[in-house]
Amino acid sequence: MDKLNVTQKLIKEHLVEGSLEPGNEIALKVDHILQQDATGTLVMLELEKLGLKKAQTEVAVQYVDHNLLQADFKNADDHAFLQSAAQKYGYWYSRAGNGISHVVHMERFGKPGKLMIGSDSHTCSAGSMGMLAMGSGGLDITTAAAGHPYYIAMPKVLGVELTGELPDWVSAKDIILEMLRRYDVKGGVGYIVEYYGEGLKNLSAWDRHVIANMGAELGATTSVFPSDEQTKICLTQEEREEDWQEIIADNGAEYDKYEQINLNELVPLIATPSSPGNVVPVSEVAGKSISQVVIGSSANPGLHDYWIVSEIVKGKNIPPEVSLDINPSSREKIEDLGKLGAINSLIQAGARYHQTGCMGCIGMGQAPATNTISLRTMPRNFPGRSGTADDQVYLCSPETAAVSALHGKITDPQVYGKSVAYPVFSEPEKASVNRIMLIPPKENGYKTELKKGPNIKSLPDFTPLENNFETPIILKMGDNVSTDEILKAGAEVLPLRSNIEAISRYAYQDIDPLFHESASKAKTAFGGHIVVAGENYAQGSSREHAAIAPRYLGQKAVIAKSYARIGFQNLVNFGIIPFIFENPEDLDQLKENNILIFTDVVKAVKAGETITVYNQENQKGINLFCKLSKHQREILLEGGLINYLKIHS
Amino acid sequence: MDKLNVTQKLIKEHLVEGSLEPGNEIALKVDHILQQDATGTLVMLELEKLGLKKAQTEVAVQYVDHNLLQADFKNADDHAFLQSAAQKYGYWYSRAGNGISHVVHMERFGKPGKLMIGSDSHTCSAGSMGMLAMGSGGLDITTAAAGHPYYIAMPKVLGVELTGELPDWVSAKDIILEMLRRYDVKGGVGYIVEYYGEGLKNLSAWDRHVIANMGAELGATTSVFPSDEQTKICLTQEEREEDWQEIIADNGAEYDKYEQINLNELVPLIATPSSPGNVVPVSEVAGKSISQVVIGSSANPGLHDYWIVSEIVKGKNIPPEVSLDINPSSREKIEDLGKLGAINSLIQAGARYHQTGCMGCIGMGQAPATNTISLRTMPRNFPGRSGTADDQVYLCSPETAAVSALHGKITDPQVYGKSVAYPVFSEPEKASVNRIMLIPPKENGYKTELKKGPNIKSLPDFTPLENNFETPIILKMGDNVSTDEILKAGAEVLPLRSNIEAISRYAYQDIDPLFHESASKAKTAFGGHIVVAGENYAQGSSREHAAIAPRYLGQKAVIAKSYARIGFQNLVNFGIIPFIFENPEDLDQLKENNILIFTDVVKAVKAGETITVYNQENQKGINLFCKLSKHQREILLEGGLINYLKIHS
Repeated sequence: MDKLNVTQKLIKEHLVEGSLEPGNEIALKVDHILQQDATGTLVMLELEKLGLKKAQTEVAVQYVDHNLLQADFKNADDHAFLQSAAQKYGYWYSRAGNGISHVVHMERFGKPGKLMIGSDSHTCSAGSMGMLAMGSGGLDITTAAAGHPYYIAMPKVLGVELTGELPDWVSAKDIILEMLRRYDVKGGVGYIVEYYGEGLKNLSAWDRHVIANMGAELGATTSVFPSDEQTKICLTQEEREEDWQEIIADNGAEYDKYEQINLNELVPLIATPSSPGNVVPVSEVAGKSISQVVIGSSANPGLHDYWIVSEIVKGKNIPPEVSLDINPSSREKIEDLGKLGAINSLIQAGARYHQTGCMGCIGMGQAPATNTISLRTMPRNFPGRSGTADDQVYLCSPETAAVSALHGKITDPQVYGKSVAYPVFSEPEKASVNRIMLIPPKENGYKTELKKGPNIKSLPDFTPLENNFETPIILKMGDNVSTDEILKAGAEVLPLRSNIEAISRYAYQDIDPLFHESASKAKTAFGGHIVVAGENYAQGSSREHAAIAPRYLGQKAVIAKSYARIGFQNLVNFGIIPFIFENPEDLDQLKENNILIFTDVVKAVKAGETITVYNQENQKGINLFCKLSKHQREILLEGGLINYLKIHS
Repeated sequence: MDKLNVTQKLIKEHLVEGSLEPGNEIALKVDHILQQDATGTLVMLELEKLGLKKAQTEVAVQYVDHNLLQADFKNADDHAFLQSAAQKYGYWYSRAGNGISHVVHMERFGKPGKLMIGSDSHTCSAGSMGMLAMGSGGLDITTAAAGHPYYIAMPKVLGVELTGELPDWVSAKDIILEMLRRYDVKGGVGYIVEYYGEGLKNLSAWDRHVIANMGAELGATTSVFPSDEQTKICLTQEEREEDWQEIIADNGAEYDKYEQINLNELVPLIATPSSPGNVVPVSEVAGKSISQVVIGSSANPGLHDYWIVSEIVKGKNIPPEVSLDINPSSREKIEDLGKLGAINSLIQAGARYHQTGCMGCIGMGQAPATNTISLRTMPRNFPGRSGTADDQVYLCSPETAAVSALHGKITDPQVYGKSVAYPVFSEPEKASVNRIMLIPPKENGYKTELKKGPNIKSLPDFTPLENNFETPIILKMGDNVSTDEILKAGAEVLPLRSNIEAISRYAYQDIDPLFHESASKAKTAFGGHIVVAGENYAQGSSREHAAIAPRYLGQKAVIAKSYARIGFQNLVNFGIIPFIFENPEDLDQLKENNILIFTDVVKAVKAGETITVYNQENQKGINLFCKLSKHQREILLEGGLINYLKIHS
């Protein structure tokens, strides 16, 4: 493999362990860390517990772009906490109102050749600049901040050749919608998507951001673009020419799989409810009445994407039935739009101009009315994500959105374009570089005191693995228990994410409303509890609170027939032993309130041996084992990943 | 009284019944109706029940400025409902995102000499233009829409003479804060405040809006300014010169009480937590650290009030600890600010620029962090109004707010002004007149179908007063039961305001969690229920739901020792008989589940006679009476105000 594609070059450059064979586990050096506020608070609490002095990556940034509405003290308190934590742990801090993480990161930090992980699934957007950027869980970020590499299975590379040139009224969004039309939402799983070919020539770095961003919707590990002249133009706009370097595939480089899109043949596309993979030509759904059009998000964040809307609606009127909502993506974009007169064009036509941030894309405001269609330039239209339970959200390009807004119904912009010239955009030579709300890391920042509002509590301490214990079973469950059942999401529980004591009161509530009480009693009488379950325990969402909250309540072990992959890892990460029945039928003979006697657990875990535990009720033995990698074993023995990192940092 | 002041002229011009003697009940012709969305939905449901074809006032406007966040379908559904209702009942409709009601009304409709009532307590802002404008309850608006006059007790007039000229760095807000310093929040009760004198010469109509707006905080019925050259300038900016007429006090006109403010002597003032009446000079609290500065609301809505902030922060940086939040007050103001480059000055300095509307002023977003100071140009700082329970909100001028934002602490702008020139503002000749989001009434609008989302239900029908009934007492209460206890507010209950069936489930919940169940049983078995109480029943908030919800559940009568004034009127308005014990001790002999036998009720109510009801348990008689005005009696006999208006419209 001496001819490398861009992906292979980026991986090779960061390879700490493993080789480039697809499927192999590889460890990668992390250059940049990106956190947003909704996931960042837990990471910061983990760093506090770890006692980290300074994030070990070249660049670490805490953004605030999700929870901007501030309906009560909690969001504002979270912002103050994150700002103090950013100072303490050597992060940059991007203040509430500075813009969407992926957009600001590209403006200020994005650098060809760098590797980034971020606690946001659209971190992959930075692939637009020749970076390898991947979304991941909070503990992965914590681990990287502590200076450890990032582990993944080496993905295959899907090479997508772009040829030709986009027709008028067709834009970058239609390219990624075409990919979604072909591959649907799981077609990218196990792949990194790498774009190449002469079609790239006219795609600006911001166009590429659109495509890389929604690569997440393909299920791809990430997407990668070469770093070329367009990348240089973008960095020059941002007054960072010096950060540019060329990174292109070697002549003759190969891919694991090939795809080709002729841009000349593309038509305006649209994802219909309620999956980004439900893609059809706009013409197929044209004529449907709409109540709302929302412009913005990290899926269409470029100056072009707002300007084109302002040009299309300029001097015209949005009809009374349509709310045209504009979410600017960053302060630079607001200023650029102001200079171009675009804000006034939008306001004159009847648009609502909101603060900058994720906003409607994550259901933070702008929920549409019941039984009406909302057209958005956003990346996702999963059911209910807009905030309206039975929403009908369609995803499309800014051109389709703007032309449809003018007509009050879904409209093919190419049909409209038969009588109207396509506005020609050219990127400005310089952007309105604005870094006022980006606070740099502080010298000796580790001395900073964390600002904790009443809802923000330090993480509890967890002891190393215990060797001998007698513990009651306080809950017996069936198959396929999800993390939603272990710890639900929703408006009541989510705001407690920085308060383990408070959130733990909701553990297993939907299965057993008295769980918290039983766990407290067992903790007092026996020092903890265990639970038993059938197949596929802890399936579903990757939420770490479904492990940390039970552990906080004294959970020493789970015994199940089998586990979901991420749920299993989370148990290990928080020091709960994920035992498996040697004979699955043994589940039948266990009852709630049975007390199990565990002896010499440490030795068994260390050696990977089967252990026999006794049921006090009938003195019968049950054989259990623990299927752990070496790394998982070390983590579990220390009582969890944070303890492990404390020792190994 | 041949020499009249402006207030007397306005009242005389609209007098339908009564005379100008203070204390007399007078009936006034209503020219304009103003509704905002939070209170407007119930008014529209009342109009539906009434079967109104067209609002009978010259101008009726439904604004949407309160519930703009749209976290789920409910707000968007309310907007769609209000838009359809506005069309149906001959209202103008100001769409979500058009601006704050009082501001847009002044731009588009405000006209010297007109009388307005509005379902928002800051309706009095229109006093800035020589209008008589008063905030009132929803049913008053319904009544006016049906063509009936507005009844109030003739207030006294407090004449406030302004002399001199405002010093640099002191502005209109400091004038009303000075009034609040002198009169506190109850000093204006029973008065209309009328401003006059040479000091008015340099106060623009928008400055006067600031003063008239916060007249509400004095407890005044309203505030009134003459219509003069400044009024003409404002109307000319809005391309409505023809709406101007001069209205000034007659030479020698008198006031019931006199006050005088020498503008030359004013200093920057600030209201400290948690009352608009806690006013001190800014210098007294200078130096306190702040976390937030919010610019906007109807208490500082003029172009000057945003421009001055942009000039003060231009080219400078807001410190990292301060969030500077800008809430533009209308689309015209946004456009004007855009033309002046002010938006970019604000963004460059680090401000957050939000959509237009009431926003933070009513706790819709921008809640400050725990234990931090928020400085606002808004009208109210009642505890918790910001959304943060233990907030510390200070109220001040835009000058004080902007200079403090720059320093990260409360700062006297006159001290700052020692080394910095005060930016000189001049009103533009023409405003950016923008009426795109203001939908005119429709020809034959009554044919419009109301758009009702799943949470919006028509009001129930209520029968006329029943003559004979046997009904159980299902709740016995003590003294001072508040409307909050009868039907609480809060995030869980407020969104149900357009759904009487749903909200009625919360009736009396804090007193008796099983009330809804008891009421349902009593309705099935006896056709309804009664409740009994001690002194001062239904005190507190004027909320009408504390009457309509119990009536929906079958409440036929309340028997109490005495009633709060508004609570009593609301019972009458919704057809619940407010009986009073002839012998207050009789309350002691009544128990829950006693069945009372009422006979010949209609005759007794008509004649205003005492009625004897019998307790089925012991066959003892209890004497009750009903203290009603003629008008109240007519309403009650029809089963409530809506039934009454149906017959008398």
